[in-house]
Amino acid sequence: MTTKAFGYATHSATSKLAPFHFERRGLRPDDVMLEILYCGVCHSDLHQARDNWKNSIYPMVPGHEIIGRVVRFGEDVTRFNMGDFAGVGCMVHSCLTCDACEADLEQYCRCGATFTYNAIDPRDGQPTYGGYSDTIVVSERFVVKVPKGLDLKGAAPLLCAGITTWSPLRHWKIGKGGKVAVTGLGGLGHMAIKLAKALGAEVSLFTRSPGKAEDARRLGADAIILSTDASQMEAVKGKFDLIIDTVPYAHDLNRYVATLATSGALALVGYLGPLDPALDTIPLIFGRKSIGGSLIGGMAETQELFDFCGEHGIVSDVEIIRMSEINEAYERLLKSDVKYRFVIDMATLRE
Amino acid sequence: MTTKAFGYATHSATSKLAPFHFERRGLRPDDVMLEILYCGVCHSDLHQARDNWKNSIYPMVPGHEIIGRVVRFGEDVTRFNMGDFAGVGCMVHSCLTCDACEADLEQYCRCGATFTYNAIDPRDGQPTYGGYSDTIVVSERFVVKVPKGLDLKGAAPLLCAGITTWSPLRHWKIGKGGKVAVTGLGGLGHMAIKLAKALGAEVSLFTRSPGKAEDARRLGADAIILSTDASQMEAVKGKFDLIIDTVPYAHDLNRYVATLATSGALALVGYLGPLDPALDTIPLIFGRKSIGGSLIGGMAETQELFDFCGEHGIVSDVEIIRMSEINEAYERLLKSDVKYRFVIDMATLRE
Ligand SMILES: [Zn+2]
Ligand SMILES: [Zn+2]
Ligand SMILES: [Zn+2]
Ligand SMILES: [Zn+2]
Repeated sequence: MTTKAFGYATHSATSKLAPFHFERRGLRPDDVMLEILYCGVCHSDLHQARDNWKNSIYPMVPGHEIIGRVVRFGEDVTRFNMGDFAGVGCMVHSCLTCDACEADLEQYCRCGATFTYNAIDPRDGQPTYGGYSDTIVVSERFVVKVPKGLDLKGAAPLLCAGITTWSPLRHWKIGKGGKVAVTGLGGLGHMAIKLAKALGAEVSLFTRSPGKAEDARRLGADAIILSTDASQMEAVKGKFDLIIDTVPYAHDLNRYVATLATSGALALVGYLGPLDPALDTIPLIFGRKSIGGSLIGGMAETQELFDFCGEHGIVSDVEIIRMSEINEAYERLLKSDVKYRFVIDMATLRE
Repeated sequence: MTTKAFGYATHSATSKLAPFHFERRGLRPDDVMLEILYCGVCHSDLHQARDNWKNSIYPMVPGHEIIGRVVRFGEDVTRFNMGDFAGVGCMVHSCLTCDACEADLEQYCRCGATFTYNAIDPRDGQPTYGGYSDTIVVSERFVVKVPKGLDLKGAAPLLCAGITTWSPLRHWKIGKGGKVAVTGLGGLGHMAIKLAKALGAEVSLFTRSPGKAEDARRLGADAIILSTDASQMEAVKGKFDLIIDTVPYAHDLNRYVATLATSGALALVGYLGPLDPALDTIPLIFGRKSIGGSLIGGMAETQELFDFCGEHGIVSDVEIIRMSEINEAYERLLKSDVKYRFVIDMATLRE
C-alpha cells in the first residue's frame, strides 16, 4: 500500500522546481520510512534538474543528502527503531550479489547501483524520487544511523560531499602524519579538509584565490598554496601522499602530479571528462605516481564516516534555506556563492 | 688505483659502436669488481646511443643488464666472495639518505639515482660506463647475488626487463588468483607474463597480432585478447586487477581502462610522454580505477626477484650475440626482431 508524499519537483530542463504530489511505495519487510528533516543541496542536483548530463527523467525530485527520523519500518529491519535519526545518501539499491556489493562497494555494483533520484528502481520499474520531500522509503542496507549528538543539519552533506572525500582518504590509507592536499574549496573541498585533518594528516589547500586562506585555516588546513604562484608550487614539489581533486572542470593535472611524493596518488572526485591538457606519463613513471578516481562510498564506509564524525564532532558548514528558496539557491550555486552547502529545512516544505 | 677496461662505445648519435679503451675506478671499501660474462641489450641502450632522449654523454658504453663474476672486492664488502656470480642493473648509486632510499626505493631517490651508463657519478664527477665491457666496479648495495643454478645468460635481462615488470606486480600486490593483463609482447611483456604466472595470477595478453598467441601461451599466458577485436575487448570488460602496459608509444588507454575491475590499476612501464588520445576520467571515477607508472625497481626488490627466479627457474628468453654483432642487433631491435632479448656473450668481446 503506497503512501502519499509531497515534495518539490522539476518537470523539464528549463522548469523551476515547484510543489509536487507523488507516492512512496508500500513498505517491504526490509524497508525503513523516514520523515525527512533536512536535505542538502548538491551540485549534481542542479546538473540533473537541468539535464546537463543528458540522462534526466522527469518529473524529478532531487536530493541525496537526506537526514530524517524513522517513522515506520518493515518486519525484517534490525538496526532501526521508531524515532531514530537516520540518513540516506546517493544510492537506494544495488544487486547485493556481485563482487563489488559483496566487498561493501555498492557504488561500484557491476549491475549498476540505483541512485536515490533520477533512476529506475529495477525491483518495481518505478522512478526514484529524492529528498526534496516529506518522506522516503529505503531498504535498511542503504540507511545509516546518525550518532547521538551529531548536528542534524550539518550532517546532511556527509551523505554526498562527506563520503565522496572520506572514501578516497580511507582507500589511499591516510592516517596520522599523512600529507594530504585538497584542490578546490567548495562543498567537497571543505569536507576533505575537515576529514583529513581529523584523521591526523597534515593538510594543504591548493587554491587560485588568496581570499580563501583564512577560511581554509579555520576549517583545518595547515597550509594554503596559491596554485598560480610558481614558487609556492615549487616549494611543495614531491610532497603529498594524496591529493583530493574536487575541481569540477578540466584543468592541468601535471602541475599537481609534480607535488606528489613517490607512490603518491591524485584522486579525482569532481571532474568528469577527458583530461585536457594531456596527462604526461613521465612523472608518473619516474615517481610511481598515479591518477585515480573515486565515487561516493559504500554503505559500510558511510556508516563508518558517520561514526567518525560523531566521535570527532564533524559536520559540514551549512546555510539553511527554506524549500521555497531552492530555485534561488540553484542560481547562487552556479556562482559558487555558498559556504559550503545549502541544506533545506524540510519543516518549511509546506510554507 | 684505476684499472684498464675494454668495451664497446659509441662516440656520437650517428656512430656505430666500436672497441673502446677506458678505465674503471680503484676499488673503494664497499666496491665489488665484476668480470662481466653477459650483458643484455635493452631498447633504452639504443635510445641513449642515438641520443633519442637528448641527454646523451659521449663516449658512451651502454649496457645495464649485467651478469658477472666477482674478481675483487673492498674490505667493507660483506655479501660477496671471490668467484660469486652477481648482477648489476640500471643504477650504481643513489643518495642513500632520502626517504625513498631509506624505503629501498633507490630508483626514486630524491637526489636522483646515478644510472649505470650515460650518467655522471656525483662521488667523483666521472661518467659512468655500462656493461658492454670486460669489467665493472660498483658499490655492494647496487649488486645482486645470482642464486645457484639460475641460467646466467637468461638472468641478465632480469636486471631491467625483469625488475621493471616485477616491481609493479609487487606494488599492486598481485598474488594467487589475481587477474593480470599485459599489453605488448616484447622484452618487458614476455617477462611480465612469466612473472605474473609464477606469482599465481591468471594472465592475459593484449596484442594486435594473432600470430603472437602461440608464443604467449608457451610463456604462460592463459588467454590472448586481440585488442583490435571489439567483441574480445567487450568480453573482458571489468576483469583485470592490474594491466602492465609495456607499449612504448602513445596509445589509447581508455580502451584498456574499460577492462579493469573496480579498484584496478593500469601501470605504465613503456611509454614516456603525453597521453594521446586524452584519458577520460569518467571510468576512473565510476570504478575507482587508476593509471600509474613504475620505474625499474629498488635493489632489495631486485634481489627478491632474483631469489624468486632462482626458486621458480625463471629466466628471460634470449638470443645470444657476439659483441661485434651489436650494431646489427640494434637494427633488428628497431624492427622488434628478437625473441625476446639479445644478450651479449662477453667472451666474444676481443674477437
Ligand atoms: Zn551529491
Ligand atoms: Zn552489485
Ligand atoms: Zn633497460
Ligand atoms: Zn635518495
